[in-house]
Amino acid sequence: MSSTASLESMKEHTVPDNGVEQVQLLNGVEDLYDGVVVEIKEYMDSNSFIPLLRASISQWKQQGKRAVWIKLPIEFSNLVNPVVQEEFRYHHAEPDYLMLVRWLPNTCDTLPVNASHRVGIGAFIVNNNREVLVVQERSGGFKGTGLWKLPTGVVNEGEDICEAAIREVKEETGIEAEFVEVLAFRQSHNSFFRKSDLFFVCMLRPLSFDIQKQDSEVEAAQWMPIEDYVNQPYNKEHQLFQYVAEICKTKSEGNYVGFSAFPTVTASGKKTYLYFNNGDLSKL
Amino acid sequence: MSSTASLESMKEHTVPDNGVEQVQLLNGVEDLYDGVVVEIKEYMDSNSFIPLLRASISQWKQQGKRAVWIKLPIEFSNLVNPVVQEEFRYHHAEPDYLMLVRWLPNTCDTLPVNASHRVGIGAFIVNNNREVLVVQERSGGFKGTGLWKLPTGVVNEGEDICEAAIREVKEETGIEAEFVEVLAFRQSHNSFFRKSDLFFVCMLRPLSFDIQKQDSEVEAAQWMPIEDYVNQPYNKEHQLFQYVAEICKTKSEGNYVGFSAFPTVTASGKKTYLYFNNGDLSKL
Repeated sequence: MSSTASLESMKEHTVPDNGVEQVQLLNGVEDLYDGVVVEIKEYMDSNSFIPLLRASISQWKQQGKRAVWIKLPIEFSNLVNPVVQEEFRYHHAEPDYLMLVRWLPNTCDTLPVNASHRVGIGAFIVNNNREVLVVQERSGGFKGTGLWKLPTGVVNEGEDICEAAIREVKEETGIEAEFVEVLAFRQSHNSFFRKSDLFFVCMLRPLSFDIQKQDSEVEAAQWMPIEDYVNQPYNKEHQLFQYVAEICKTKSEGNYVGFSAFPTVTASGKKTYLYFNNGDLSKL
Repeated sequence: MSSTASLESMKEHTVPDNGVEQVQLLNGVEDLYDGVVVEIKEYMDSNSFIPLLRASISQWKQQGKRAVWIKLPIEFSNLVNPVVQEEFRYHHAEPDYLMLVRWLPNTCDTLPVNASHRVGIGAFIVNNNREVLVVQERSGGFKGTGLWKLPTGVVNEGEDICEAAIREVKEETGIEAEFVEVLAFRQSHNSFFRKSDLFFVCMLRPLSFDIQKQDSEVEAAQWMPIEDYVNQPYNKEHQLFQYVAEICKTKSEGNYVGFSAFPTVTASGKKTYLYFNNGDLSKL
């Protein structure tokens, strides 16, 4: 949204020579769905802003616009309440801004939904001695259980699943690795407020073997014989963990095919990874 | 958060018989991570609320709390700006509320990240004549391309991927179906503001065959010979679409195994689906 204009020059009405009052309008950027996006870039008090907003909405309605988006950086939170009073609702928020939206037509809105899922990864990585890279964490739900678990982490904003797995292994254990396959994934709900969670178990191939653990998050890290990993009491007692461990073990024996990551592009030209069973589709 | 207490009785200081002033505090619900969640349930002006908030934070700090969450329904947006002035930041927002958070210790925050992904599905469904269920949409990026595409849709809040695929096919075409497998998925970024997108191609098995299309979203729907579907010019010209079509065709010929949905439970007892290559792991 770099093309969003400053509001600086839009605060005043001007009366040109012919005596016809010119009303300044907010400068919005049009989106692909008959919407207008206004990004506030400098402080305004609501007494200045709301008349501008009303005049602009009136004009946008005449132009057939369907949605007005207002991106309000947190430093301009003084405008949140006044904008809500103008029939805007929240759409989403990040630490540094709040996005509000108003649907203009008298129809049900077709606005895009907010993000609904967080995405995490677990990395299964085996060395040439059939040992698995496992960690014990300093905090979190598994602290004190004695469980040796796969390195895990959250996929960063804009990060690919296959890259997140490599990054997390490097951060937690110092091990360099390359991506092999997604072996499995699970979806769970209400994992944080009303949000859901997708967790991808990824197999990586190690490119280095000397562990240098991250002290802040990781209590201990080691290469553990795969049978010992699978047979831990915690895994035996928890069905989901047992399944994941069995899938990993089967994969390590060469008897399992997951989804490879295939780099391609979307119809609009964006780079994207398609994950699928490449073993069954070798001709692509 | 049904146990969050009302603020009604907390607005005033009381002076009991012994003359020692008692300061009323906000009633927060403790979470599992040394945090406190305050849900505002009735109107308060900021002159009443902020002193209460300050006194409460002072107490929570003494108790070793690390995070304070404030859930502000949109009807109480008058408190957004005052709460931001108290060093809170946004965490996330839904249409009807804004969640603010403040990290109390003098350390880097370990707060959970916001949801980062929207999740969509496409449904591949073949009848006994090797015909694919395809649609043309009334709006969106494929309008006017002539492309016959798989029914697609967005996974609802709290909905399982395998259920979303069944629901979307029913809504768009009237066809009843059951879930078979996830055949592939792709992840793309910056699909909406800074958010990413995960799209799962699901195979379903039809349980009915008479199409009754949804007029509001679907321009046309039909059963189309699979070779015709795969060989559409649009698919040939767009690598991602070509791959998905080839995967679907290979599956329809019985030569591809995707990920089945296996119902299980998480360590904390929540129902969850684990998706994996069940063909390679039949002993589970």
